[in-house]
Amino acid sequence: MPDNLIEPRVVKGFRDYLPAMMIVRERLMETARRVFRSYGFSPIDTPALEYAEVLLGKGGEESDKQLFRFMQGKRDVAMRFDLTVPLARFAAQHASTLGLPFKRYHLGTVWRGENTQKGRYREFMQCDFDTIGTLSPGADLETLLVIHDLLAAIGFERFTIRVNNRMILNGLLQQIGVADRTTGVLRAIDKLTKIGAEGVANELVEHVGLDAAGAEKVVSVMRPDVTLDELETALADNETGRQGVVKLRELFATAIAAGLPAERLALDVSIARGLDYYTGTIYETFLTDLPGIGSVCSGGRYDNLAELFTKEKLPGVGASLGLDRLLAAMEELQLLGTTSTPAQIFIAYFDATRLGDYQRLARSLRAEGLGVEVYPEATGLGKQLKYADRKGFKLALIAGSTEFAADQWQVKQLATGTTTQVPTAELLTTLRGLLRSP
Amino acid sequence: MPDNLIEPRVVKGFRDYLPAMMIVRERLMETARRVFRSYGFSPIDTPALEYAEVLLGKGGEESDKQLFRFMQGKRDVAMRFDLTVPLARFAAQHASTLGLPFKRYHLGTVWRGENTQKGRYREFMQCDFDTIGTLSPGADLETLLVIHDLLAAIGFERFTIRVNNRMILNGLLQQIGVADRTTGVLRAIDKLTKIGAEGVANELVEHVGLDAAGAEKVVSVMRPDVTLDELETALADNETGRQGVVKLRELFATAIAAGLPAERLALDVSIARGLDYYTGTIYETFLTDLPGIGSVCSGGRYDNLAELFTKEKLPGVGASLGLDRLLAAMEELQLLGTTSTPAQIFIAYFDATRLGDYQRLARSLRAEGLGVEVYPEATGLGKQLKYADRKGFKLALIAGSTEFAADQWQVKQLATGTTTQVPTAELLTTLRGLLRSP
Repeated sequence: MPDNLIEPRVVKGFRDYLPAMMIVRERLMETARRVFRSYGFSPIDTPALEYAEVLLGKGGEESDKQLFRFMQGKRDVAMRFDLTVPLARFAAQHASTLGLPFKRYHLGTVWRGENTQKGRYREFMQCDFDTIGTLSPGADLETLLVIHDLLAAIGFERFTIRVNNRMILNGLLQQIGVADRTTGVLRAIDKLTKIGAEGVANELVEHVGLDAAGAEKVVSVMRPDVTLDELETALADNETGRQGVVKLRELFATAIAAGLPAERLALDVSIARGLDYYTGTIYETFLTDLPGIGSVCSGGRYDNLAELFTKEKLPGVGASLGLDRLLAAMEELQLLGTTSTPAQIFIAYFDATRLGDYQRLARSLRAEGLGVEVYPEATGLGKQLKYADRKGFKLALIAGSTEFAADQWQVKQLATGTTTQVPTAELLTTLRGLLRSP
Repeated sequence: MPDNLIEPRVVKGFRDYLPAMMIVRERLMETARRVFRSYGFSPIDTPALEYAEVLLGKGGEESDKQLFRFMQGKRDVAMRFDLTVPLARFAAQHASTLGLPFKRYHLGTVWRGENTQKGRYREFMQCDFDTIGTLSPGADLETLLVIHDLLAAIGFERFTIRVNNRMILNGLLQQIGVADRTTGVLRAIDKLTKIGAEGVANELVEHVGLDAAGAEKVVSVMRPDVTLDELETALADNETGRQGVVKLRELFATAIAAGLPAERLALDVSIARGLDYYTGTIYETFLTDLPGIGSVCSGGRYDNLAELFTKEKLPGVGASLGLDRLLAAMEELQLLGTTSTPAQIFIAYFDATRLGDYQRLARSLRAEGLGVEVYPEATGLGKQLKYADRKGFKLALIAGSTEFAADQWQVKQLATGTTTQVPTAELLTTLRGLLRSP
């Protein structure tokens, strides 16, 4: 490459989205918006940049190190690393205008300077929804319903939403007198699948300082397959733990009453994600056929969203869909398809003098809701059809002087090559029929 | 405010989007996507950050000064200030994968550290579409059609797309022997509405160095109301100018043949926007009822998109909708409305024991495509209805033990207060009827 050309490349850890992938990404985004709206969640947006003081210290030391932070003139600013801290700032700033409870969704790009691995990028889209300003179990139920409907609307049939409540662990630790060891206990439990129950028990004794009986109790209660009845018995003498069981029972009962399929819900007291931050219900969602990517939609209830910005107490509950993470996993598994056009019908620009006629027909079909591309150049038909085929169009329309004289269009099914002559008056009906057929 | 609280505020020049505005903004974005897709334009996305060398020097000195540029580790990076330079980099990088011609749309946020004025922000969304890799007039026509259908789909009825071709001015300047004075001439013409024809003629003589006859000719030809016939006569002896007239004639003729209303199109050789960059057709779009905001959708044809990144010549044509600018103008003119919920139906959480039933009904209505919010808390009905009213819901559904016993719902029209009892079996039909009525 000569010296005077700039090498076209993206910044390390970033990526371009080409059409075949971006078409799926936009479909995911639209599905998420449709589901959020159908529950009355309202959209908001916040700036990509915040004052550094707004973002610093909110996601822990690790997150501070990953900030894209710089001076903009005299202003110390940084790019947002999630949508939760901006929501806290937003809620504190606008609470009086918004009124409570407040339900919002937010699709937005976030940036983290983390080490890049396969499928992990420094820029990705988050897709959050939260209900703030209420302690009501109605909001916990709704969060569960939205997660379910979101996954179902995206097209997944086999998935499980695992539900926990932070009060179970709180009660258990109170019971054995180690309420101050939460973080260590969580870290140990989080290794359950890796090191097994015995390994966790050892770690609880050796590193967290529990006695053998306490470690034994933690391990026996915090099993992935523990039942609500077993929890009720185990926590019978602890008010916090008992309340946790009552809340989980109520959540499952109302979810079933609202029509969720029971097989998509599971109690799992071993999910530890975000337990540091969450104070009540916790949700994680696993795809049966993509277990390797971890939870694709996670969240929970928190006591106070914006305590660093306002004295007003704002409890809430919500969850976040890892949209780009899901997309990257689908890409890796080659689940994305190769279609790189959002339109299904292709009109060849066959007769150079008929441009206005091709676009007139195209516009009349677009007005009926069909996607129609007219090839930009009056070049050879073979080249045009090859283009149409490669992009993934379904049908091609061709007309030259013969067809115009007869008021007809040649309709070609690109997958099979089948061609028929269709009178203009019947064209819309014919096209709709062909697009419906598999 | 106590010292330990962080003041919740956005960075100067940035803004939050609250629901009432964000609902309209998302509607505009979706309308734009729908129109682009209906023409077969494919979506792409590029990173917010590019290597500084990719962005520097591309938008002139002014644009370099406005860059948000910083060091990310050892990398010199900057936030994109438009979507055109990223497209050039993208096209050079992926041309072999994409194939040509290539039609893309891109909705994306851009950042410019410009002085903030009313309605101007340092972060805003652009909404671009381009056809690259072709010189065909079919792409120029399609750009015009997309601009038209975009404005019409957004809901504007009174607007004019002004069209020009850079070859008119090129021919004229060749004719009078000052082809090297383009920039100065453009700068002078751009002041036409401010200083009048005489003022422009004076400036052409005094500052650009044209002779009196040349200045006279420029002013007499570059009138906003000049016709194609007049241009043809004036440029009869210049090949470039004549070609420009032929291209404009063809564009108008094919646009009318394709069905565009003639009253929405206008020849305007005085539009100078981007003439430095554009080499053929130029488009600007003005809203009859919002003349003050300038052109809301502008673009044109260029000879070579990516010459700084690749030796491959990539001519193209496209335009950009100033989405946030349009939105800010609508806000200022109070055209946005106050509805802050995307759902139309509100279900009161009236009987605390019936949460599952409320959500079950809501889910069945959502499955029919209706937006339905269940109030999150089982609090007083008056408070709930006040919330529903303030957010802009249309209908409220209320059911307590009486209604559940009778298998009925109370349906309240929030605007009028009218209430009727509706059997559950008839509810969907009733709601649809009420939502259709004005």
